[in-house]
Amino acid sequence: MDYKTDIENKIKHSSINSPDNSNIIEKFVQKNQEKKIIAVQGLGFVGSVMSLVCANAINGDYAIIGIDLPTKRGKSIINSLNNGIFPLVTDDPKIEEFFLNTIKKNNFIATTETESYKFADIIIVDINLDVEKNNDYSGELIDYDVNLDSFKKAITTIGENCKQDALILIESTVPPGTCKNIVKPIINNCLKKRKLSSDKIKISHSYERVMPGPGYIDSIQNFFRVYSGVDEKSADAVESFLHTIIRTDEYPLTRLGNTNATEIAKVLENSYRAMNIAFAVEWSRFAEEAGVNLYEVVNAIRLRPTHANLMYPGIGVGGYCLTKDALLASWAKQNLIGNSEPLLQSEKAISINDQMPRFAFEFLENNYSKIRNKKVLLLGISYRGDVGDTRSTPVEKLYDYLLESGAKINCHDPYVNYWDEKSINVEQNIAKGLKDSLDIIIISTGHKIYKNSKTIDMILSLKPIFIYDTVGLLSKGHIEKLSKKHRLKVLGRGDL
Amino acid sequence: MDYKTDIENKIKHSSINSPDNSNIIEKFVQKNQEKKIIAVQGLGFVGSVMSLVCANAINGDYAIIGIDLPTKRGKSIINSLNNGIFPLVTDDPKIEEFFLNTIKKNNFIATTETESYKFADIIIVDINLDVEKNNDYSGELIDYDVNLDSFKKAITTIGENCKQDALILIESTVPPGTCKNIVKPIINNCLKKRKLSSDKIKISHSYERVMPGPGYIDSIQNFFRVYSGVDEKSADAVESFLHTIIRTDEYPLTRLGNTNATEIAKVLENSYRAMNIAFAVEWSRFAEEAGVNLYEVVNAIRLRPTHANLMYPGIGVGGYCLTKDALLASWAKQNLIGNSEPLLQSEKAISINDQMPRFAFEFLENNYSKIRNKKVLLLGISYRGDVGDTRSTPVEKLYDYLLESGAKINCHDPYVNYWDEKSINVEQNIAKGLKDSLDIIIISTGHKIYKNSKTIDMILSLKPIFIYDTVGLLSKGHIEKLSKKHRLKVLGRGDL
Repeated sequence: MDYKTDIENKIKHSSINSPDNSNIIEKFVQKNQEKKIIAVQGLGFVGSVMSLVCANAINGDYAIIGIDLPTKRGKSIINSLNNGIFPLVTDDPKIEEFFLNTIKKNNFIATTETESYKFADIIIVDINLDVEKNNDYSGELIDYDVNLDSFKKAITTIGENCKQDALILIESTVPPGTCKNIVKPIINNCLKKRKLSSDKIKISHSYERVMPGPGYIDSIQNFFRVYSGVDEKSADAVESFLHTIIRTDEYPLTRLGNTNATEIAKVLENSYRAMNIAFAVEWSRFAEEAGVNLYEVVNAIRLRPTHANLMYPGIGVGGYCLTKDALLASWAKQNLIGNSEPLLQSEKAISINDQMPRFAFEFLENNYSKIRNKKVLLLGISYRGDVGDTRSTPVEKLYDYLLESGAKINCHDPYVNYWDEKSINVEQNIAKGLKDSLDIIIISTGHKIYKNSKTIDMILSLKPIFIYDTVGLLSKGHIEKLSKKHRLKVLGRGDL
Repeated sequence: MDYKTDIENKIKHSSINSPDNSNIIEKFVQKNQEKKIIAVQGLGFVGSVMSLVCANAINGDYAIIGIDLPTKRGKSIINSLNNGIFPLVTDDPKIEEFFLNTIKKNNFIATTETESYKFADIIIVDINLDVEKNNDYSGELIDYDVNLDSFKKAITTIGENCKQDALILIESTVPPGTCKNIVKPIINNCLKKRKLSSDKIKISHSYERVMPGPGYIDSIQNFFRVYSGVDEKSADAVESFLHTIIRTDEYPLTRLGNTNATEIAKVLENSYRAMNIAFAVEWSRFAEEAGVNLYEVVNAIRLRPTHANLMYPGIGVGGYCLTKDALLASWAKQNLIGNSEPLLQSEKAISINDQMPRFAFEFLENNYSKIRNKKVLLLGISYRGDVGDTRSTPVEKLYDYLLESGAKINCHDPYVNYWDEKSINVEQNIAKGLKDSLDIIIISTGHKIYKNSKTIDMILSLKPIFIYDTVGLLSKGHIEKLSKKHRLKVLGRGDL
């Protein structure tokens, strides 16, 4: 491919190979002295792509310094980026196009060097802020905690190095109250220690709505944004900046009154989805008891415009946001903004969703009793269809339950070749290595490929005796056809 | 008005005046012998309007016998209907038009005579099935029970009289499992006692989605329907019937696999809305603590297509469905279909929503401390904007809290002149009877009239010192304008 050759040539002639050397960053800044400098803190699923969007701003000219921790993972991402290989597997063609552009323009460099913040006019924070969850074996949420230490540390490295008039944009999902009660005091305190005034610093919050997958770039560049600042000048500054990277003519910005408001908006969004899913979970169990196909019911109800967003039940909720954001909010309500009662309803939703893999497993057990020594093929380990992201994937719990029941499991996923969390290899060819007969096939991720007839033929050639569609990927008609033609038992959740 | 004169003439020349006389029903049937006879059981908010829709079928010719109980309320409705006065106050012009048509065609009669079922080809059940709720003073739901006795009795009167090949259509909201486990056995048993075969009886379920208000008729005639039967022939029969009264070309019917499925669909729909509201309630309290205007946050989030149905928090949930349907479902899950755990999440939603009037009252107390002896005007007592329906209205609880705090309360509602549940008169003219100065005005129902500038001027002429918008009817701009211009405190929920 032309692209790759071009990239490889660029790499050969590039001087970037030692990202931890601050001289190189200085040279990069000098080369880009006409441009405003943006530092992006955190180069994960959001920061790496946000960097690309900024480097290809629709209405501005920026040079980007991506900064991550000197951990094994951090260094690997940095090396990859500096060597012309984008670190995420994705099927969004714009990612490659945008990345190639940055290489051509030489306006994106990655480093572990925290001193680099001193060059930045704008600093974007895209780091994780984790919730420590404690679930029992059944998946029920026992308790949880939020530890702000590493977040505070990260903000401190900014405060110790940043220009006194920098615009700091927090994009991370944080417990509401963080910008006002955590970020601002830390930054001001650092500036004070450096004997600098904190009058000109601008601290703002505008959360991303990044959606990995085919519309990865568009989920930043062509999507609505909500923003705020700790004061008027901060809000104005971030507004001006967002206009340069987002198509705000089509997707207008919304300013909210204060940073608490935007921080709440973000976690509210994700809690709302988690809640809708938990609702579907509870009702799907009822439907199962009543011999009712809930997918059919939901389809009928979704005809109503007011109910079009009703969710389907499935194997579980995964990913980085839906599994924890309600807890961030509830924690903040108890510890950061006030000290009142938790968001009980939203916490309960997380707990219900965390139990979904068990419900799916119990459903399998009830319909196919002897799992011991059975050969099981899991189709999909990613938490979301057509994406290679295994963070908090519900398939992990299902895998554990199956393993413990004595099943012999193989996993397939076209987007993942190694399952980090389980340290196992993942098949990328369904037929390969599975030449023997199979007992149970579980469709565990809604990858579109599992719907196509070629794949289904391949699955059938393995002569399973039981197919269990945990994600409702196969239609009722499809299931009936398979059942009749191949005399095998096919179960979708809710099809009794 | 021409209409009324015409109706009055019809009444004068009508022979209908003693609805409890079965001879008159027989005569009515004879007169309409070319037509199929439909009996509608229950003439409340659904049955009375359903009768009109059937009497004006788009694709069939029916005569309707409306049947209600010989209670004071039942008899009053029946007399009203038979005397050419539609018993519900409504602003849907189609109601009057449809009703006038039935008088012209003489194809609608009302009676308490249960023997009338014997004439019916189709029997539609539109009676209430109540949940007995036990809330504590704060609104929290302590426990609840479902009593099927009167429902069973009603079905028995049908079984004792119906033709052996009648189509029985249950439209009432029932605990899932009712058609299969309650209705069918009762009808079959009655037929057996009458030494009739139960081979030809057809029992079906298709829930209404009636929405009182300007689109009352359309909410039946021009809206999606979900249906099912206890067997194939029942489902086929109700399908044919529904085609004759609903514009199914534009709003296609959906058949579900069994009556459990449609029964679940109905209560699921309303539980889903109740849940969405409960979600907004919990978060609005969080927003209040954080000094955030939740309306603003919700508006920002609703730009996302996947989040467009996010609800606004308000004074509370009222009406007949949202306050109880989740409990019907949870009860059925524990008692009628299975004996498993309740639908905890949905039950909790009902309990949270039941506490909303208290939250609204506490919000008022926190922002306007001394309520004793203050003159309060409640704008709206109906549970829903632009509708005159006080069933389970949340304003009732707010009224109680205010009264107990020593406030002097007046109520205004353009759609209600007497508040049954409280036995008090309701003003229909804001200025009338309120010539003295006022302290607090509470917008307690989202009637559009409260938004119009003429009304607002009238409100302001009462010189209140505090306006509390519990339903988010006034925009932020509106509130600011009022606050500045008139130097009064205006609070929307969430505007701190």
